[in-house]
Amino acid sequence: MVELIVKKRQGGELTREEIAWLVRGVTQGSIPDYQISALLMAIYFQGMSREETVNLTMEMARSGDMADLSSIPGVKVDKHSTGGVGDKTTLVVGPLAAACGVKTAKMSGRGLGHTGGTVDKLESVPGLKMDVPRDRFLQIVREHGVALVGQSGSLCPADKKLYALRDVTGTVESLPLIAASIMSKKLASGADAILLDVKVGSGAFMKTLEEARDLARLMVDTGNGAGRRTAALLTDMDMPLGRNIGNALEVMEAVEVLQGRGEARLAALCRELAAGMVQLAGASREEALAQVDRALASGEALEILCRMVEAQGGDRSYLEHPEKFALSPAQMEVAAPQSGCITRLDAQLCGLCAMELGAGRETKESVIDYGAGITLYKNKGDRVQAGEPIARLYAQTEAQCARAAKRLLAALQIKNEEPQSGPLVLERIGI
Amino acid sequence: MVELIVKKRQGGELTREEIAWLVRGVTQGSIPDYQISALLMAIYFQGMSREETVNLTMEMARSGDMADLSSIPGVKVDKHSTGGVGDKTTLVVGPLAAACGVKTAKMSGRGLGHTGGTVDKLESVPGLKMDVPRDRFLQIVREHGVALVGQSGSLCPADKKLYALRDVTGTVESLPLIAASIMSKKLASGADAILLDVKVGSGAFMKTLEEARDLARLMVDTGNGAGRRTAALLTDMDMPLGRNIGNALEVMEAVEVLQGRGEARLAALCRELAAGMVQLAGASREEALAQVDRALASGEALEILCRMVEAQGGDRSYLEHPEKFALSPAQMEVAAPQSGCITRLDAQLCGLCAMELGAGRETKESVIDYGAGITLYKNKGDRVQAGEPIARLYAQTEAQCARAAKRLLAALQIKNEEPQSGPLVLERIGI
Repeated sequence: MVELIVKKRQGGELTREEIAWLVRGVTQGSIPDYQISALLMAIYFQGMSREETVNLTMEMARSGDMADLSSIPGVKVDKHSTGGVGDKTTLVVGPLAAACGVKTAKMSGRGLGHTGGTVDKLESVPGLKMDVPRDRFLQIVREHGVALVGQSGSLCPADKKLYALRDVTGTVESLPLIAASIMSKKLASGADAILLDVKVGSGAFMKTLEEARDLARLMVDTGNGAGRRTAALLTDMDMPLGRNIGNALEVMEAVEVLQGRGEARLAALCRELAAGMVQLAGASREEALAQVDRALASGEALEILCRMVEAQGGDRSYLEHPEKFALSPAQMEVAAPQSGCITRLDAQLCGLCAMELGAGRETKESVIDYGAGITLYKNKGDRVQAGEPIARLYAQTEAQCARAAKRLLAALQIKNEEPQSGPLVLERIGI
Repeated sequence: MVELIVKKRQGGELTREEIAWLVRGVTQGSIPDYQISALLMAIYFQGMSREETVNLTMEMARSGDMADLSSIPGVKVDKHSTGGVGDKTTLVVGPLAAACGVKTAKMSGRGLGHTGGTVDKLESVPGLKMDVPRDRFLQIVREHGVALVGQSGSLCPADKKLYALRDVTGTVESLPLIAASIMSKKLASGADAILLDVKVGSGAFMKTLEEARDLARLMVDTGNGAGRRTAALLTDMDMPLGRNIGNALEVMEAVEVLQGRGEARLAALCRELAAGMVQLAGASREEALAQVDRALASGEALEILCRMVEAQGGDRSYLEHPEKFALSPAQMEVAAPQSGCITRLDAQLCGLCAMELGAGRETKESVIDYGAGITLYKNKGDRVQAGEPIARLYAQTEAQCARAAKRLLAALQIKNEEPQSGPLVLERIGI
């Protein structure tokens, strides 16, 4: 191990055999943490070649169970977002792609953050189970075209171990390690093709287009290098995505999108992502967009989401009548402090505001309040009058709302000018 | 701790308070090893400023007992060598400096390597004890001007911990960490002034003059920054120093030097180092050299070594009659394979040869054979005839001698040309 550390420290390239030995040692616990963390820091500084990254990713994927989706006919496409504020696209695009004949057998994590992960969001539907046994999971995908379940504990144990160590040793921000962490789970999940939504901006892990582009290219190369068709969209995450931030609130908004009444920017992104998945299954961009538009207009995609929820034990009437969701009792409207145009609504600060309200997890032990969160009446680019409500906050206590309101106002900038606005999809890689 | 790691990873400078907190955590064991090793690797890449290095060194020195030499009158000067093959200068220069009125209360380590450390070498004198109680240690220095004892277990516990971790995490080769490790022990040992002998070349830790100069400057600045007068000589370690490599063999050769019959190069270095110590105590270079020459010619320095050995329980008759030392029974002469001039006698390979013979420790558990080692009849620059003996090997078995002889021949290059030869003292820093 010391030889491997020194080799990497001096900028050398680890061989496939060395990486396989390393990942085995990490998984079995035979390499001490202090040597692993020294190697991780050396990787932070020296990077990894494309080949090293592919080998690391494949070995990490193989460190635990590899899902076998061969019993599901057709092309299986997975979608992964690097995470943003108000990002509920997974709830929308899986059913949309399924309505176009593309199968999605998606395993999601919980994770820390402003709101819960997809798993937590769906759990706000009464009765819905995310720990679905493997056979039943595959059956739901075969029958309905899509299932969204929690990650099994035996998926990529090497990644679990490495991520936990990176988190406490200042080695999270390494592109090859990030790429290997994400892509190993995608490979182990068994899809034939993978569409990545790499977020850029204040509310994203990658703050600049350059960083995001580097990560996206590396992940696309890694996926393709491992024999899975992989593509990426780089999309804007400077302002929150859509109107709602929270768990039940985001499920409600996903339904709105599937009803064709979604907020324009969010709806446009869902359309792009679903079409991208259909493209990865073999269609042209034009065909894919047309199919997605039909699936939305016909209501078929919404019906698929309802059936999937039902198959996973959830009460589908909540999706048919979203007003049934119980939102948190303490509510407060936040008013615009002045008139003008919203030139900034910082996504990261909005996320912290949602966390304050109880929608997210600060530590692994935090309990999520499914009914908590934010509804934004206004977003970046909108004109407001002083005193006009711009958002509604939901939490368990008035005090939480008051603290969160301060955070929201800090995220807000109102000026007498139009904001600079860029496109939603900043770049496309491999699609 | 994660904040500290990230700060250093991004090239930031740790404050004095942060370093104090860190060293406390390392000493108390409250910071997990995996975080310490990640920080060490970040330091490897980002380095440390002079101020950080001084602070780290001082905090490491304070992590355990700080020796109080105030009961010893006069200026106390310590000498430290970064280690080389055949380096027995400590046994010579302490008594030489003491004969010039400079006090040396030196604590040495055992260490791994081609031969033992100063502690091991002295232990080849029957009866001599290196674990001398503190009061007795100070008394010997007061009475005889010099004592050489083993390091107490409570000296710089933070260094022990950090060094053990660096050794297994590929983070040994970091100049500020090397400087802090060496200088913290020197500060804790309590001397007023410190003379460093930084070795350069094949048999040294620092292979090039540039690296050695950087390390020497950093250590000199660190010592001076911590309020101790510090200077350094950069000296050649491409060929073995003197004729003997081993433990008893090196004590025997030290006596030869003190008798004025030492090999010229070794004797010259001992003269320079002893004079340097006298200079650090306040004398001019001319005065210092004259005093050292007198101490040697009068036999006073040898008498001091004998008294010190006696005071530490050793049998001084071995120093008066070095032929009493029992050398190892299996002996073999190595002959020159061809005629010509020795253009290379690689110090590192000679060291490995001595280790093969049993003179050094390969692991902490290895038992040293005090009578084992090499006597070189010839060294770099000498002319030889084919078949002429160039060295004698001493070990427990013929097989060891045979293996070692191969190593010695691999270290040797004989050509029909004069070797390139540089000066022994390559540079002086602060003296």
